[in-house]
Parts: sequence; structure tokens; C-alpha cells
Amino acid sequence: MIVEVIAVGTELLLGQIVNGNGAAIGRRLAEEGFDAHYQVVVGDNEDRLAAALETAMGRSDAVILTGGIGPTQDDLTREAICRATGRAKLFSEEYAEALRARWAATGRVMPESNLRQAEFPEGGEQLPNAKGTAPGIALEHEAVWVFALPGVPQEMMALLDDEVMPRLRRAAGGPAVVKSRLLRSWGMSESQVAELLDDLFQSSSNPSVAFLASGGEIKVRITAKADNEADAAALIEPVEAEVRHRLGVRIFGSDGETIEAVVLRLLDERGWHLATAESATGGLIAARITAVPGASGQFVGSVVSYATELKRRLLEVPEDILVETGVVSEETAMAMAVGAARLLGAEVAVSVTGSAGPDEQEHSAGTMVIGVHTPEGTAARTFRLPGDRERVRTYAGTAALQLVRLAVEGSWWRR
Amino acid sequence: MIVEVIAVGTELLLGQIVNGNGAAIGRRLAEEGFDAHYQVVVGDNEDRLAAALETAMGRSDAVILTGGIGPTQDDLTREAICRATGRAKLFSEEYAEALRARWAATGRVMPESNLRQAEFPEGGEQLPNAKGTAPGIALEHEAVWVFALPGVPQEMMALLDDEVMPRLRRAAGGPAVVKSRLLRSWGMSESQVAELLDDLFQSSSNPSVAFLASGGEIKVRITAKADNEADAAALIEPVEAEVRHRLGVRIFGSDGETIEAVVLRLLDERGWHLATAESATGGLIAARITAVPGASGQFVGSVVSYATELKRRLLEVPEDILVETGVVSEETAMAMAVGAARLLGAEVAVSVTGSAGPDEQEHSAGTMVIGVHTPEGTAARTFRLPGDRERVRTYAGTAALQLVRLAVEGSWWRR
Repeated sequence: MIVEVIAVGTELLLGQIVNGNGAAIGRRLAEEGFDAHYQVVVGDNEDRLAAALETAMGRSDAVILTGGIGPTQDDLTREAICRATGRAKLFSEEYAEALRARWAATGRVMPESNLRQAEFPEGGEQLPNAKGTAPGIALEHEAVWVFALPGVPQEMMALLDDEVMPRLRRAAGGPAVVKSRLLRSWGMSESQVAELLDDLFQSSSNPSVAFLASGGEIKVRITAKADNEADAAALIEPVEAEVRHRLGVRIFGSDGETIEAVVLRLLDERGWHLATAESATGGLIAARITAVPGASGQFVGSVVSYATELKRRLLEVPEDILVETGVVSEETAMAMAVGAARLLGAEVAVSVTGSAGPDEQEHSAGTMVIGVHTPEGTAARTFRLPGDRERVRTYAGTAALQLVRLAVEGSWWRR
Repeated sequence: MIVEVIAVGTELLLGQIVNGNGAAIGRRLAEEGFDAHYQVVVGDNEDRLAAALETAMGRSDAVILTGGIGPTQDDLTREAICRATGRAKLFSEEYAEALRARWAATGRVMPESNLRQAEFPEGGEQLPNAKGTAPGIALEHEAVWVFALPGVPQEMMALLDDEVMPRLRRAAGGPAVVKSRLLRSWGMSESQVAELLDDLFQSSSNPSVAFLASGGEIKVRITAKADNEADAAALIEPVEAEVRHRLGVRIFGSDGETIEAVVLRLLDERGWHLATAESATGGLIAARITAVPGASGQFVGSVVSYATELKRRLLEVPEDILVETGVVSEETAMAMAVGAARLLGAEVAVSVTGSAGPDEQEHSAGTMVIGVHTPEGTAARTFRLPGDRERVRTYAGTAALQLVRLAVEGSWWRR
């Protein structure tokens, strides 16, 4: 079944925003095995929008429009659908009432233009938008499905998952439910994961097993199709257990869980607090952890010891270690972690010292040393990371958080 | 003149990468006044690519293809151009030689498939690609220009600026040179800037004056068209002087200059060093500054005092200030800045304390207080920032860097 995406909005043509919706919908369609031949961007122009829709309906089995369904005069997707399908534009008194009630609840008077959102093509359905006011539209026209979704990414994704994908699955004659489990791993290369899981990739069809490297981690996605949620979950379960068994401690979380959230949860479970001592990462790790709401429960603070003198004076890295092993060494990293735990009053501390580049200093650019201290021990590890300064720093931050996880779990000491 | 962009690549349809090239080309075209009606994404399929190109040639004056000109069997843009225009595919012996020489210079044997990159449509030109091996293509066919550019963004942009835009300008009968100057300002709303510069926006045509709000700053772009660089620069100069005069100290840099780079330059000029004391921003400011290579010349380090106890113990914020004015107050922010300067041994320090949300604490989410200390004085300012946690933190970081700039310049004290 071929599905075409049309993203609507002059701001997309002008490059003021990047068409992330197109990519997000493309990804979701691909995950579930739908084909895509074209994607189109068209501005806020009724003629051209209608023409793009007609073309898409002539060559695809379903068309997903995103954008242009708000309340302003620039929002022309509803008109274009009526024009391209030759259907009348109806008015939903029910939706209009709901809109008025919504505005009344906030004590404001609704501009009359908002009522445009109550319009929809004859024969079509309005799709409730829980995260916004503009309802989506679903219409089956001469065996082609046409969907109109909001342009706001969050609203678009919710309607895509809740309303569009189930209809597409039914139209494709497939199972009603497609369920995915994402297992997130760190510490192996893509090819190592591929090798370890090769038979699962090859033999599996339902559930299917696929993997994707991004942001320094390898994500393994297990996707099952079934008639209901329970059957899909039952298909996923044994494969998930097998993948977890083979990858072991490299798996740090699943689905939307980030390494930051996992670290904070593990610390909370043990009643420990975290501090960071950052040199080459310059505060990135602390910034990532404090991006999680509620981080203050487990995170106390950080010393960014960019100047070597601060490693000595504040973190109390012994002079002989600095002189004998250098600023970028596992000994220095461990001393920094111990010093940060003491100075900042935390049971656990992680440190980073290294050379992020682009210039070669004492150590080649990309050499990053991470130290971790917990009540159970102190350890360090050296990484040689590829890429530019930003990439090296980001990867070092991820590695530091992963090593904190391994140390707090106790996996590091048990190796 | 209407220009259409076709981005080529199955990975775009699958959403594995976002179509940033489409946005980048769209932006460049808009800056120079070219119109865009459609953008299209098509996979690595010769039939569909040729069809998309034919459609585009029928409704636009120029078509820019990006992607699909590499050496592999998946690279089908050359074939599609020949098919859509009915032109023969020629082989450039000269380019083939250059390719062979390039490989020979690295001591490796060139795979024969690379020779596909020497192919081009009859009547077309090969555009030299200094940053890669695949040459671009320019072809005028029945009064429509067709360009094929690499998919690698850096290579694409270089060929777009150096080869495509000059041809489009000539085709549009315009001047040879279009030169832009971007003035970056902070500290005024979009509507305030619009009001102050209204007559310039209204009256100006060459140079034109436009503005764009992004990332917490307002960028004013002055664009001149002329027959040569010197004439364009002469057109820009008086308008730039006028904009600078009207916006005054709000202008912090021009073109690619970031606030981080400006702050480091100003510190260097005065021989001062910078420290940060971050609570709500959690290390973001230090991370942004240390993202600049060579930051260690002016940046010494940071204390992320996420736990209140650290504000007291390390930064020596007096107990009576904490009790009487609270953790989120201008008095606390100033004491944090003074304490960080002392603790970390820097002449200048900036501090942030606040509530980034989403939960309301003592202060409403979005309240961020910034303190700055220099040898010339200490001051603080309170911001109430809209948006989610990430946005509030990012904007607070930008505001902190801007206030450091104003203080180091001396503008803050002179107000």
C-alpha cells in the first residue's frame, strides 16, 4: 500500500522550518511496512494544494496532509480536499459547540474565524485532537484514503498514531495492532550487535527485529503484528528476553527511557546522590542531567574545572598525579571523581578529562578519560572518540552517564 | 522566477534523515527573491525520479535536484535527467582522468563504478565539486534550467552558492552579485525592532532590509544586489550604519558571530577571565562557552550549585540573603556571581538561579534571575521566560551571555 505525504505551509518552502513532520511520518510508515514513493511540500495556496492532492490521489493509495487546518485564512487544506474530491464542505454544529465551550471555559471570547475548524468534507470524519483545537480529517474517496492532520508535530503524531495508522492497517487488510518494543544498548558497535543478533534479524518476520544506530547507542526494535494488544505483547516477549540475554548489561533502557532518566532512577533506588567534575565536557553532563525535571532529588551539582589549577585546588587532585600522569590520565580522572564527591557532598561522582579537539594538545584530539567514584569503588576508562569537537563532547557525555549506570548497578565491578 | 527543489533519496522517504537540504535551498532562494511553489522528495527510482523532474519542468522555471549523483547503482539522477529531457548521456574523459588522478594520489585503486560520475547529459555542464568527487550538473533545456547537486549538505551548499545562484540570477535578468549582511541583536522584541526599523523595511528595495527572530535573538538582514562586490558593499554600508545607530548596544555581532564567541573576544580584549555559577541552567552556559575551540584562554570553570547547600558552602552566599530574599532573588544571584569569581579565581562571573519548570516551586516556572560580577561592578536582572523547561533554560543561558557582554563592554553600567 503506497502512502504519500503532503506537508502544507509556505514557511516550509521558504526554509523557515525544516520538514520534520515529513520525516516523522515517513519513519512511522516504514516501520509498519507501508511504501512511500513521493513526499511533497506545497505552500498556503488553494489551487496548488488541490493540484498536489489530485496528483497524489492518482498515484497513491493514501495521502496524509499535514498543516493548513488551523483557523486562519491561510489554512486551506479543508478547501483543497473539497476541491480535489468534488465534495461539499459541511459544518459540524457539534464541533462548533465544543469549540465555543472550550473558549468559554478560559473566559475568553472566541474569534468567529475559529469556526472554520468545524468545517469538513462531505462523507469525511472529524478526528478529535486532544492536544489542540483543530480536528483532523479522514475521508475515503474512490478507494483512496485522505487524511488531514495538524502541522504542530505533537498534535500531528498523536493523531497519526491514534487515528491514521489503525485505518491504514485496516485498509491494507493487515492486523489491527502493530506493537513495538525498543531496547536501547550502549557499549557495542553496530557490527557487533548485528553479529550477535544475526539469526534473529534473518529468521524473524513476526515479530520483526531491526536495529538502528543513533546518538551513540544501538537501538533494537522488535515489532509484532497481531489482532490485539495482548497477542502482540506475547509475540514480543520471548524475543525481547532473548535479545536482553544476548546483549546483557549493554541494554540500559527501553522505549522512551533516556540514559539520564535511568541514571537518576538507579541513584534514587540506592539512595545515592551524584556530582560531576567536568573538564573537556565543560558542563554538558550536568546540563543533560538537569534537563530532567526533578533531577534535584539525586543531583547535587558540578565543578567544571576547565583550568588545571582548579583540578588541583578545588578537586584536590594530588600534584604528583598531575605531574607524573598528566592532566588527561585515568589517575587524574579518578582523583577528580573522588575530589568532586568530597567537595560537593555526593556518594557518587563522575569526571571527564580529555581533549575534544580540534587542536592536538598533549593528547590527540578525541582522547577522553572518564572516572567514576561510588561507595563501592573508583574506576576509570579511556576512550578515543572520532569526529569533531561537538561530537566528541556529546559522545563523552553519553559514555560518562553509561559508566555511572554500570557502576551504580554494580555491573562495572562484577566484570 | 519559480524554482522547484527535488530531494532524491529513499532514506528521505523512510525518514532516516530529515530533508535539511530542501529547507536550506528554500531559504537561499527566498533570500534572493526567487519564488517556490513546490518541493518534492523522491526515492532512488529512475522512473519516478524522471516523472517528478518532468512534472517540475512543466510548472517551474528552474529545478534543483539534490542527491543521487554519487558513484553507486542507486545514484540515478543523471539517468533521470537524460530521460526527462530526451538527451543522450555523454562521458567526460577529462573528468574521468581527474578522478583517476585523485584516487592515484591517495595510493588507492579507483573502483570502476566511480566513472559513472563522469557522465552528464548532452548540452549540459559539469560543475566542479571542490569538497567531494561527484560533480554537479547544469543544463538549460527548453528555457528551463535543471541543476543536479550532491546530497551531502556541505558540498550541496558550496555548489549552490558558487554555481547555481549566479546562473539563476543571470537567468532572472538580475545583477551578478547579491551580498548580505546579518546584524544580530538581543534585548528587544520582534515588534520593537519592527517599529524602530519600520521606515527602513518599508522604503528599502536595494538594499532590502528584513528581519527574523530565532534562538532568542532578532537578526536584521541587509541584502544588496549589484554588478560587483564593491558596489554591493557600498550599498549596504550606510544602511548598516543606520541600523546600528538605531539598535545601539542591542547589536552584539554580525554574520556568523555567536554570542559565545563575542563574549570570549571581549574578555580577551580586557584581559579578563570568566567563571559561571549555575543553578537552574545546570551547566548549560559553561557547556556553550566551552563548545568554542580555544575557550580555555578566557574561561576558567564553573560551579553548578544545584543543591542550595552548595550556594551557601562553596559560593558563600550569606545565610541572611538566602533566608530573607530566597534562593531565587537578585541578591542571591549577585552573591553567587561574587562567590564564583572568588572561588574559581576569575575577574568576571555570571550566575543563574531560577525555576525552569515544569513544576511551580516558590517562584513561578520561567522565573530566571541572572547576576553578573566584573571588576567594575555587580548587577542582576530578573526574567520571566515563556515556554517549556528546555526553552526556558536555553533562553536564560543566552540572556546570561548577553548580560556578560553588556557588563564587559561597560554598556550595562552606562545605561
